[in-house]
Amino acid sequence: MKTIDLRSDTVTKPTKAMKEAMMTAELGDDVYRDDPTVIELERLAAEMVGKEAALFVPSGTFGNQLALLTHANRGDEVILEGNCHIKKYEVGAASVIAGVQLNTIPGHLGKMDINKIKNAIRGENIHFPKTSLICLENATGFGTVLDIEYMKEVSQIAKENDINIHLDGARIFNAATALNTSASNICRHVDSVMFCLSKGLCAPIGSILAGSQSFIENARKNRKLMGGGMRQVGIIASCGIVALKEMTKRLHVDHENAKYLAEKLEKLPGFNVIKERLNINMVFTTVDNHINFPRNFEEKLLEHGIKVNGYRGDEIRLVTHHGISKNDIDEVVNVIREKVFK
Amino acid sequence: MKTIDLRSDTVTKPTKAMKEAMMTAELGDDVYRDDPTVIELERLAAEMVGKEAALFVPSGTFGNQLALLTHANRGDEVILEGNCHIKKYEVGAASVIAGVQLNTIPGHLGKMDINKIKNAIRGENIHFPKTSLICLENATGFGTVLDIEYMKEVSQIAKENDINIHLDGARIFNAATALNTSASNICRHVDSVMFCLSKGLCAPIGSILAGSQSFIENARKNRKLMGGGMRQVGIIASCGIVALKEMTKRLHVDHENAKYLAEKLEKLPGFNVIKERLNINMVFTTVDNHINFPRNFEEKLLEHGIKVNGYRGDEIRLVTHHGISKNDIDEVVNVIREKVFK
Amino acid sequence: MKTIDLRSDTVTKPTKAMKEAMMTAELGDDVYRDDPTVIELERLAAEMVGKEAALFVPSGTFGNQLALLTHANRGDEVILEGNCHIKKYEVGAASVIAGVQLNTIPGHLGKMDINKIKNAIRGENIHFPKTSLICLENATGFGTVLDIEYMKEVSQIAKENDINIHLDGARIFNAATALNTSASNICRHVDSVMFCLSKGLCAPIGSILAGSQSFIENARKNRKLMGGGMRQVGIIASCGIVALKEMTKRLHVDHENAKYLAEKLEKLPGFNVIKERLNINMVFTTVDNHINFPRNFEEKLLEHGIKVNGYRGDEIRLVTHHGISKNDIDEVVNVIREKVFK
Amino acid sequence: MKTIDLRSDTVTKPTKAMKEAMMTAELGDDVYRDDPTVIELERLAAEMVGKEAALFVPSGTFGNQLALLTHANRGDEVILEGNCHIKKYEVGAASVIAGVQLNTIPGHLGKMDINKIKNAIRGENIHFPKTSLICLENATGFGTVLDIEYMKEVSQIAKENDINIHLDGARIFNAATALNTSASNICRHVDSVMFCLSKGLCAPIGSILAGSQSFIENARKNRKLMGGGMRQVGIIASCGIVALKEMTKRLHVDHENAKYLAEKLEKLPGFNVIKERLNINMVFTTVDNHINFPRNFEEKLLEHGIKVNGYRGDEIRLVTHHGISKNDIDEVVNVIREKVFK
Repeated sequence: MKTIDLRSDTVTKPTKAMKEAMMTAELGDDVYRDDPTVIELERLAAEMVGKEAALFVPSGTFGNQLALLTHANRGDEVILEGNCHIKKYEVGAASVIAGVQLNTIPGHLGKMDINKIKNAIRGENIHFPKTSLICLENATGFGTVLDIEYMKEVSQIAKENDINIHLDGARIFNAATALNTSASNICRHVDSVMFCLSKGLCAPIGSILAGSQSFIENARKNRKLMGGGMRQVGIIASCGIVALKEMTKRLHVDHENAKYLAEKLEKLPGFNVIKERLNINMVFTTVDNHINFPRNFEEKLLEHGIKVNGYRGDEIRLVTHHGISKNDIDEVVNVIREKVFK
Repeated sequence: MKTIDLRSDTVTKPTKAMKEAMMTAELGDDVYRDDPTVIELERLAAEMVGKEAALFVPSGTFGNQLALLTHANRGDEVILEGNCHIKKYEVGAASVIAGVQLNTIPGHLGKMDINKIKNAIRGENIHFPKTSLICLENATGFGTVLDIEYMKEVSQIAKENDINIHLDGARIFNAATALNTSASNICRHVDSVMFCLSKGLCAPIGSILAGSQSFIENARKNRKLMGGGMRQVGIIASCGIVALKEMTKRLHVDHENAKYLAEKLEKLPGFNVIKERLNINMVFTTVDNHINFPRNFEEKLLEHGIKVNGYRGDEIRLVTHHGISKNDIDEVVNVIREKVFK
Repeated sequence: MKTIDLRSDTVTKPTKAMKEAMMTAELGDDVYRDDPTVIELERLAAEMVGKEAALFVPSGTFGNQLALLTHANRGDEVILEGNCHIKKYEVGAASVIAGVQLNTIPGHLGKMDINKIKNAIRGENIHFPKTSLICLENATGFGTVLDIEYMKEVSQIAKENDINIHLDGARIFNAATALNTSASNICRHVDSVMFCLSKGLCAPIGSILAGSQSFIENARKNRKLMGGGMRQVGIIASCGIVALKEMTKRLHVDHENAKYLAEKLEKLPGFNVIKERLNINMVFTTVDNHINFPRNFEEKLLEHGIKVNGYRGDEIRLVTHHGISKNDIDEVVNVIREKVFK
Repeated sequence: MKTIDLRSDTVTKPTKAMKEAMMTAELGDDVYRDDPTVIELERLAAEMVGKEAALFVPSGTFGNQLALLTHANRGDEVILEGNCHIKKYEVGAASVIAGVQLNTIPGHLGKMDINKIKNAIRGENIHFPKTSLICLENATGFGTVLDIEYMKEVSQIAKENDINIHLDGARIFNAATALNTSASNICRHVDSVMFCLSKGLCAPIGSILAGSQSFIENARKNRKLMGGGMRQVGIIASCGIVALKEMTKRLHVDHENAKYLAEKLEKLPGFNVIKERLNINMVFTTVDNHINFPRNFEEKLLEHGIKVNGYRGDEIRLVTHHGISKNDIDEVVNVIREKVFK
């Protein structure tokens, strides 16, 4: 039975072009800076987000935590939205590795009120930690994007207060696609950005941290400290090059498919797709209680080869990606209609 | 010129009884557990908050951070209200010493919604830190108190989830006075409590951390690690004994004086005392803009020997204590009326 | 010009069999535990070192630091030899991530005196951290191995004191080959072991941390915290399987080549190979001052396509591996004799 | 029964002059910098060690750890002697609070070989932490002192490598007395110094951290983070002023008494006083096995009101101080001769 996996775009597999690239990639020992493929990936990645330099890291969490470690001193305070990935899904790492205090601001769909950011910045006082970083997330985990104007406003506040901004751009190219702009156009308002080569871009492993030359130099040493100094990295960096060159161009397909899925779900009785959050490749929906929708729909769907994550709170999240076609979506909706409901 | 200091109750000075106690205190080396005066203070302190054991510490911040270090492992998450002292006024220490992540919940006057606490507790998930502690603050920095019923409810949630509660009770005896109950009646709903012997109780130096026997044993070792193992501590512990035996009984005077001050201020044009927060020895007030109240009123008052802290946001906080009489209050109000306003 | 790279066995490149394995590896998202190839690698790795479970990690430093984080609490003390990799070459990570204090014992060729280990274990005292781990390294960075009898003795001390042992076995299969035993025979005396799939085993990326089921369960969560949770890891784990199945069997060739190189070097005037340290694939040699051996011999050799690292102190280290044949060695020695010396 | 306490000079009690000073000390809230007595103590302390500024801290461990936190970044390496207090007796705090890696050098009587210090300083290498501090201890825990010439040599190395030196001078005035020089003459070769007001100087509580203006400014904030911001500190700072003004002048008496004790002990059969370590107020002795010296001599002596610590390894340490007279020494030696030996 074929599997249709809507749990996340992290399940994407390397493409044929990536596999070919792996076979022919020139390799070397990247700790010695001998691997030309990584060097080329890092050059290309920096260019695509408009930064001076970039660094390959094993994961998105690694890249975010490395950014905190490199931007901030232990005991410094970092301002970030209360539901962001760094706070919610990175195992408390910020308090272990960087040793920073999180000053979380509750936002709306991942967006912090500008005045609240201003007020959260600490002044001079013997009781206060130093505010040394603001973190943004674009696209957000709510499936939404932060508009350029907003990023600019945050950037201005940061500059006025001599604070850096790090962008958790795990899905920066989805954000760029949704905003109909380039990643570098988004990133010009931040000092560093992390983005994933895996997820929608289909590389099997790896993320990028990009920023200024001196920031990346420091991050390279801190990457070693965190155990991210690897050897013949070109073998997977080769996939990253394909990801950046080819896969960034097709994300609009995933976004269209998400809209297609949303329309179809909306027609099912009891489904309420959250339309304001339909910006990228993620569909969030709630289901009316009076419709007899089983809480164990995960298991039900799995019987038909469809993988989804269960409720987070009252929501179900379905994610489209390179491995999901319109036909797959039709099948999923059919199965929900005919098999999951009695 | 006499000084009237309304900045904080931290400015209180040791009483005559305390000074006498210091002179006659039997001393020893407390690192060797040889100081009978500290041992007596710790016994008395434990008794008064209804805990098995207690430990003398140099400050309230020290006691709170020691509690975090002793309750939680690095990387664990601690639930606490967004405006609490541990988050706002302890220099980011929680991320340096205990290495814990703060999961702050925005509350109302220092009180977190019970359901929000429930939702903040982490379940099993490879992305999640462990929630290992809830911190409460009573009395709060807003001048309010948490009622016993609320503390009981939080305690139940904590127990159901096998989580400890630490109480930042810097002004626990003010809270007890305001709630017309005993400190031990408040503390029965928490696993550990820190309270100050300085502040309203007038001891020159020192706070207490209290909890179970085994908790305090671990805390004693961690106190050494944090540099709080001191020597002939009896010299100041003697003041702590007086503070607990005598000064806890007179806090109602400070509370009455705060109400007296509030009434007088309320009659001044443009002053709006925040009455819902008038629970202990703190008066919070805003001042209408149209009244020509100078932003530099601190300096103006100082010319007349009156010390106050300036605005925090739009509020002025005035604190009564052992060093403030009704006459002092009359004088302060007179000076504000006649000298500060043109 | 062909390159002969004697700097380290970290420069080895994936073999043809590895590349083929990558092409056909079944992949999945390892954060969801969906990647069958990683699961198979971890099963095989655990088996080969005689442990219950194993975990794929991005690098040797990552695996060592993950072991410290998982075995010890912050503030605990770890006993280890003064020249070991964890102390000397991991960027101070132990003080940042695990937050442990290193209690280093100066040893002879990476071997700590048994009585010194005993004396280094802390007793009960309020001034003392808890000793919670002993780290050994086998093979050592001196090119030597620790014999089984020694490991057994350390293990006994550890057991008597209820302390765990972690083995930095980056080159454990070289050690096993040199000791003419199995890796599991060495590892039965330790609680956890890290070893590299790269280095002599030629996988492009990756190391293994192995130990008990519960230890690895905790380490898996800590790996996520450290940013080592990766996605379609099977793509490189496939190489690891080949490394373990095939490449562990040929390490004796590298050891023989090291001896061959040593013999040849010894015949050059002024070269003094350190024979007591000729246990694995590393040749250490000093060079007499009176022979006009240029300090910049690195550059000289590089002109002839030969890469070596310069002096560490007074020594030169040359490392054999899968990419170095007897012919390569002949050529290297010729170049040294004819081109580097005037 | 009178007690004669030879365990440590930490058992000294405040003098009559100190108690009088406490009674009349002008007090204020030191967090607000309102306490004139602390300010005076800090001024005097800075002057006496020849530094720009000084800070009162609750203990010697606090002062040392505060120095590490203020000099070094997390992950930096600190060079220090293997038996020093910071490494051995501060509960592993350096790895918890400052988060630094200890690079310990085994020395002779607390003195590290100059060349070993040189070699321990890290160069530029992606595998290396930054060396940011050297710690010295004077007087040492061996009862010995470091001569000025040695301190100068270490200082030169430090300067050449742009590294700071912190001096653990818990007994700096004992060292100065032994070296027949001033404390400031010793301290001119270091960037910061911690010394104790308790111990031989008899203040009940407190130590001093001194250094440059900007260092102390940073340390003041870090002291707050570590929970060392206290309130009416003048109450104990008053004793510190007496300690510095009066008690520093009488330490030679304790040193003479130590020599007196040593001579007397030496005459007892089986006692071998370690004369090379008889520099300050500490007498170290071993006892021959063939003399039937009981291992439980602590309990035996205690029956006669004499407190000593037991063996550390093979040594017994006896410490003279303000509370120990020549008569006391006579009595101790009598008891050992007549009561402890059968």
